[in-house]
Amino acid sequence: MPSFVSRYPLLAGVASLLLTTPTLAQKAPQTDSLNIRRIYDEALLRGQSYENLRHLTGQIGGRLAGSPQAQQAVDWSKVTMEKLGLDRVYLQEVIVPHWVRGAKEKGQIKAAKGKGVDVPVCALGGSVGTNGKLRAQVVEVQSLDELAAMPEEKVKGKFVFFNRPMNPTYIETGKAYGEAGDQRRAGASAAAKRGAVGALVRSLSLAHDDFPHTGTMRYEDNVAKVPAAALSTNGADRLSQLLKADKNLTFELEMACQTLPDVKSYNVIGEIKGSKYPDEIITVGGHLDSWDMGQGAHDDGTGCVQSMEVLRLLKATGLKPERTVRAVMFMNEENGNRGGIKYAELAKAANEKHLAAMESDGGGFTPRGFALETTNPETVTRMQQWRSLFVPYGSGEFVVGHGGTDIGPLKDQAKVLIGYDCDSQRYFDIHHTAADTFDKVNRRELELGGASMAALVYLLSKYGL
Amino acid sequence: MPSFVSRYPLLAGVASLLLTTPTLAQKAPQTDSLNIRRIYDEALLRGQSYENLRHLTGQIGGRLAGSPQAQQAVDWSKVTMEKLGLDRVYLQEVIVPHWVRGAKEKGQIKAAKGKGVDVPVCALGGSVGTNGKLRAQVVEVQSLDELAAMPEEKVKGKFVFFNRPMNPTYIETGKAYGEAGDQRRAGASAAAKRGAVGALVRSLSLAHDDFPHTGTMRYEDNVAKVPAAALSTNGADRLSQLLKADKNLTFELEMACQTLPDVKSYNVIGEIKGSKYPDEIITVGGHLDSWDMGQGAHDDGTGCVQSMEVLRLLKATGLKPERTVRAVMFMNEENGNRGGIKYAELAKAANEKHLAAMESDGGGFTPRGFALETTNPETVTRMQQWRSLFVPYGSGEFVVGHGGTDIGPLKDQAKVLIGYDCDSQRYFDIHHTAADTFDKVNRRELELGGASMAALVYLLSKYGL
Repeated sequence: MPSFVSRYPLLAGVASLLLTTPTLAQKAPQTDSLNIRRIYDEALLRGQSYENLRHLTGQIGGRLAGSPQAQQAVDWSKVTMEKLGLDRVYLQEVIVPHWVRGAKEKGQIKAAKGKGVDVPVCALGGSVGTNGKLRAQVVEVQSLDELAAMPEEKVKGKFVFFNRPMNPTYIETGKAYGEAGDQRRAGASAAAKRGAVGALVRSLSLAHDDFPHTGTMRYEDNVAKVPAAALSTNGADRLSQLLKADKNLTFELEMACQTLPDVKSYNVIGEIKGSKYPDEIITVGGHLDSWDMGQGAHDDGTGCVQSMEVLRLLKATGLKPERTVRAVMFMNEENGNRGGIKYAELAKAANEKHLAAMESDGGGFTPRGFALETTNPETVTRMQQWRSLFVPYGSGEFVVGHGGTDIGPLKDQAKVLIGYDCDSQRYFDIHHTAADTFDKVNRRELELGGASMAALVYLLSKYGL
Repeated sequence: MPSFVSRYPLLAGVASLLLTTPTLAQKAPQTDSLNIRRIYDEALLRGQSYENLRHLTGQIGGRLAGSPQAQQAVDWSKVTMEKLGLDRVYLQEVIVPHWVRGAKEKGQIKAAKGKGVDVPVCALGGSVGTNGKLRAQVVEVQSLDELAAMPEEKVKGKFVFFNRPMNPTYIETGKAYGEAGDQRRAGASAAAKRGAVGALVRSLSLAHDDFPHTGTMRYEDNVAKVPAAALSTNGADRLSQLLKADKNLTFELEMACQTLPDVKSYNVIGEIKGSKYPDEIITVGGHLDSWDMGQGAHDDGTGCVQSMEVLRLLKATGLKPERTVRAVMFMNEENGNRGGIKYAELAKAANEKHLAAMESDGGGFTPRGFALETTNPETVTRMQQWRSLFVPYGSGEFVVGHGGTDIGPLKDQAKVLIGYDCDSQRYFDIHHTAADTFDKVNRRELELGGASMAALVYLLSKYGL
């Protein structure tokens, strides 16, 4: 049995009041705290994020930009938002890259003694294939700098094995991910510049398991394109251990991935026109594309269904926004961000006035608060005055931080970019893997997130900035 | 990809500092914030809670008081704490009830039309068996009050079906559990008083699934003892639905549970003597017993391994407590609390001076803070001044609330009872079920909890109250 923390006696009272006699809420004074309570009650009693996510992950599944599943997700999102009775639902054309993984990848350590040791591997998004089996010796490094300082003969003709782990002492796992990510993003070209035949990168994860984590990588111009693969954390540990015993061991990699011609895809947008200031826009979104190996549940199916839910919650509670609120399912965040770039381009071309843009792309876990990205400190101070309305819901952390990748291109147009911030401890265990599936999502945690986002959108739409 | 919330730039700096050159921490000024950072670093880099829990749940498993597994858990806890090099590790004899479930329970709805519908059921802890098959009509109620107000002829000879759900609009799930719990705890005797033959209770869960949730119930003196069973939430919904169509349907229940004579068991205690005030005691604990159907992972294996870890973290960081710190694995919290009562009795008899008692019994999820239970408001104000030291770790909620069941009997002896408070959203989905298993526990969430508890114990041991 738990310890019974009766933290919110008053609000609990309001809650049960609303639960037993919902009409009371309408009669009660329309205070912000009561309206926010109504948003949370609607989400916890009748939230639709979870069932929408069940469909997106189970019936469509992984949906990398350019794939048939990505198109199915576009069609489904449009139909689903059309059922909400919004003022407008439309598509925004985006030309996206089309990378395909091909047959399942294989990786094996071949040491002098004993038989080969299979290692779970996967191609990094954007990598070239190995054109059959690629076998070479391995040199392990902890960083791009260590590689750069290495004599060429120690690297030439080998795989460079980037094995620096994420820093487990950070409380916010996203920071550890950001710091370790340079190996994955830039490792291949850095290795090629020193004459290496390929890059093997330790998966960006704080868990010790057998799941390889994919993710995007970029080739520098005028540098040979060599294959880049992620190894599971256990696999990376094993390779490092065997290298200590036999520095001449070889690694055999086989990947059939390739980049096909760009294809046409779409951002999907739903909109409620503002009742007083229709020209002031609040955008809330997630990215509709995902990596191909799992179901794209926490990354970022949750952000998409929560963004749709923000619109549904405003409709269901009758809280007509005074400013225009848009839910945007961005396309191609994972390997190009073409959707985010296109959305900002068109907003600018149309002289749209963005008050704020919010993104949910850290998973569908229990809400903690919001990260605020703005050049104006007064905007932060202003928004932090709303904190007390969120504390009762465990969502009161209003901190300065990063908004999100999809909304990043809006930086110069929006007064503030807002990153919806939820518990980050489990996220990178499954991020970009075959394990990012619906069963990892908890219904209440997901619905509470949509309510937290809707509550802040409600305040923004009422008071502006 | 997530939004990178760089929430703690300074502390992250300290973290990496400690990570790369641990000796620096010792040379650095012994400020509380640095010492707390060292506690978290030790937990995140070398925490042992997770591997200890793996053994307790995997090698021993469910461990109801009086069972062989409970004795194995006692032996294992003693040996495990002895390895920590504490000043003292000892057992405290406790006589505990010995209830056994017997063969797997069966429940079936028999409606006029169609064949029987199986419903997942389990006996409530302490219930008598059905002595073969017990079949009767069913009357559904939402509360004990509704039952009391009912004419006897509507109840006599039937099962009373208590179907009031937990209130999903509460943010803190423990509050909803507490409110709905009266049906489980007192339903059987309330039903028997009205001539019913048994009680069927909706499982205390906010999830919609097929797991029946057991839990303790009590028979009133001089009231007939009738069997009491929990139905899964899906099963309860099905029964309610079928009752609407056919109020004369019957339910057939078969349970072979029984209560055997009391047996001898133990609280397991490890202690670090205070360097300045050895007579002032800070107790931190969890309960070693669990229900029998699952592995007792979140309830309360996590609280036990975290409490042991508090002692290990103090030793490993060299933070010698000025006051005596005790980790107590309490026995029999689930169906009698005999261990908690015995511990308080002996503490009183020995004239021990308890400064504080802390309990972790809300699961091993991400830390949020602490619930403080005291008659002295100044103690709360005093402790809330420590909040800022915990905010960087997401553990800064210091609220007035309930300490815990095991430490409850210490209420009159300790200046404050402290309930370790973590994320509560997932807890009741698995609480008291076959699904409360090791795989539901996240390593980082668990280790962060032990660190949060150790950090508060460190401050209490240094400053007192």
